[in-house]
Amino acid sequence: MNSISATEVDQDSTQTASVEAMMQAMGRAARAAARVMARTDTGTKNAALRAIAAELDAQRPQLAAANAKDMQNGRANGLDAALLDRLELTDERIDGMIEGLSQIAELPDPVGEVSELKYRPSGIQVGKMRVPLGVVGIIYESRPNVTIDAASLCLKSGNATILRGGSEALHSNGAIAACVAAGLKQAGLPETAVQVVATTDRAAVGALISMPEYVDVIVPRGGKGLIERISRDARVPVIKHLDGICHVYLDDRADPVKAFNIALNAKTHRYGVCNAMETLLVAEAVAAEFLPRLAAAYGEKGVELRGCDKTRSILADVLPATEKDWATEYLAPVLSIRVVADMDAAMDHIARYSSGHTESIVTEDYSRARRFMAEVDSASVMVNASTRFADGFEYGLGAEIGISTDKIHARGPVGLEGLTSQKWIVFGDGQIRE
Amino acid sequence: MNSISATEVDQDSTQTASVEAMMQAMGRAARAAARVMARTDTGTKNAALRAIAAELDAQRPQLAAANAKDMQNGRANGLDAALLDRLELTDERIDGMIEGLSQIAELPDPVGEVSELKYRPSGIQVGKMRVPLGVVGIIYESRPNVTIDAASLCLKSGNATILRGGSEALHSNGAIAACVAAGLKQAGLPETAVQVVATTDRAAVGALISMPEYVDVIVPRGGKGLIERISRDARVPVIKHLDGICHVYLDDRADPVKAFNIALNAKTHRYGVCNAMETLLVAEAVAAEFLPRLAAAYGEKGVELRGCDKTRSILADVLPATEKDWATEYLAPVLSIRVVADMDAAMDHIARYSSGHTESIVTEDYSRARRFMAEVDSASVMVNASTRFADGFEYGLGAEIGISTDKIHARGPVGLEGLTSQKWIVFGDGQIRE
Repeated sequence: MNSISATEVDQDSTQTASVEAMMQAMGRAARAAARVMARTDTGTKNAALRAIAAELDAQRPQLAAANAKDMQNGRANGLDAALLDRLELTDERIDGMIEGLSQIAELPDPVGEVSELKYRPSGIQVGKMRVPLGVVGIIYESRPNVTIDAASLCLKSGNATILRGGSEALHSNGAIAACVAAGLKQAGLPETAVQVVATTDRAAVGALISMPEYVDVIVPRGGKGLIERISRDARVPVIKHLDGICHVYLDDRADPVKAFNIALNAKTHRYGVCNAMETLLVAEAVAAEFLPRLAAAYGEKGVELRGCDKTRSILADVLPATEKDWATEYLAPVLSIRVVADMDAAMDHIARYSSGHTESIVTEDYSRARRFMAEVDSASVMVNASTRFADGFEYGLGAEIGISTDKIHARGPVGLEGLTSQKWIVFGDGQIRE
Repeated sequence: MNSISATEVDQDSTQTASVEAMMQAMGRAARAAARVMARTDTGTKNAALRAIAAELDAQRPQLAAANAKDMQNGRANGLDAALLDRLELTDERIDGMIEGLSQIAELPDPVGEVSELKYRPSGIQVGKMRVPLGVVGIIYESRPNVTIDAASLCLKSGNATILRGGSEALHSNGAIAACVAAGLKQAGLPETAVQVVATTDRAAVGALISMPEYVDVIVPRGGKGLIERISRDARVPVIKHLDGICHVYLDDRADPVKAFNIALNAKTHRYGVCNAMETLLVAEAVAAEFLPRLAAAYGEKGVELRGCDKTRSILADVLPATEKDWATEYLAPVLSIRVVADMDAAMDHIARYSSGHTESIVTEDYSRARRFMAEVDSASVMVNASTRFADGFEYGLGAEIGISTDKIHARGPVGLEGLTSQKWIVFGDGQIRE
């Protein structure tokens, strides 16, 4: 998935020093803009989002021309069909960006929300206020619409943003950035509130992730290679999503219809997504009952099955699953299946192989559901629901900047709230410590 | 403040490889214990805390003997008086540890708390459940009572802990660790839930902060040198407290009595603490009225004043404050004073020089109080209260493991909740994505 980085050309690597100076200047400007954004009211932020949408609509010819350049360069550089598809900015995709801006304008503003305000014995009132993180750096790959998704979420949550897209989308991102700047200006906000890095020099990424004085958090969006590299090298906190090795456990007290529907949906609804099931765990007592019917359904969908020995004693044609299979995010019509003694064995398997993204149990047993919910240590834990529901829209966040598999700060789908922090507030009446 | 690290002796540095193997083994054991701790009920955790307290009480002679060895070594190694004082484990300090354990047993258990559980249009119910972080690594300096403070907070919040104290407290920490292990055992919990690193080899620190597979977060407690070094080198998230350059701004609409009391208390209640005021900002319109009386009071307490030119035109004997003064955490009876045009100028000064710990405005003006509260970007922001209130006990957290000046995850005083994360939970009835 990190093929984009591989296509990046160090065409101006001799200018590394000047790139670093440029990034420092962008950082300073972002820090200053962040102070303005933090105190900007909801109405103004929404006006900016709507003005950006209007600009995108008005600039369709310019966006098409810029994108055509990127597509032409992409073809000349031999980008594969999947990459070219992600790069293309069709009219429908521009419609999608405009619709996304409108949706984010309609979401409640998380900034300024005060919670848990209580009197203390000293007479002071103590609570928490939700505030922007400050400056968010976003590093992403080919899809130019991420520029709008990320910019709009950061804008609504009161942050300043520095965006660094894939080099093959340079012209498209530049054209989108011009629309964003125009929209910010119309709303009376600093254009530096959203800055797009306009160089393909990879030194820009190195600089962006090494300026804790100017950047509060980095959100990498892209393939595992990109994210691992950034997490390793960053000197600022990273909100990251690594892999999604999700499990469904069919308990021996599962309702057979729910078990069938969920196991089928979690794998086959979409294959290339992080919340798709990659390993099915089945209680031994019901394996012979559940697996043949499921295997037939997977077969109809063209899903390749790999199983443990017990699975293969029930399903004759299944290939053996290796140790590597349990640890693999296929993102493809492939499923590994393991028959386990009971829920404890299923939870042991999950503790060992899960990436901490999403796990679901199918059971009608109250006490087991309660234990699974409490004990499985993943960003999303479900009872009797498809893992495909682990998604910002399905959870009601309105939109998401990614799905975090970290435990610190944001966990699971990251929406507006994940781009904020909480500070303590104290209201007094002259109180001093005695 | 990092003199402790400087006194560490690489007496067994030839064993670095075996130290790393030892730390890996501790990490594996901690990870296994964390799964047990996460599902341990509140009553059992409280029983363990009370059993540890009883052990400390019963083992006073052993604790005294171990501490005497450390004190003797410390004197032989030329530790200064302040360090020897922090190292000493008096009967009163053991009483304090026992009292702390009892207080933490009485705090509500944050683990398992479910919030925001709501139905979604799909029919699933989505909410958040508070869960332990997993394995917490604590790195601290000389005071052996931190061993109990940190262990008890981590235990109550359902985490496993690896503690690495200062090498000069090796015997004391070992004796305390024996009490902790005995208490855990009596409560039926794994003794590996709290592990104390029993080597003075500094490679142990390097290993501890480089095992993301076994350690979820590092909390360094100590001087700025230690914390900066760990933040720079850690490969796992760090909850850290750097400096506390705290400000009080006396507005021209301040009540003079509140202004006087708060400005005096914030500086002179205690000097060596992170929530003490280091710079006083005064509105120009009231500087001539407020400063002379305050200067006299500071003079009585022996506080040295350093001021801007305008301050010095009002207070004749005050030394000039330099650029360096505005950026210094004195932790001493020294105060820098700056006369500013208005609240905006005060907020500009704070944005530039504050360490993001705690700032307070003294004013009777509603709109200014509201703006200061919203716009100042620090972990604690106060109106008409002394900065000295920025403290876990004063905020009602019951106890704190530190005060975070980070924006990500935990901000301000970090209590039990700061040692937890929230996962998403989904209750369904067979729902699948269409």
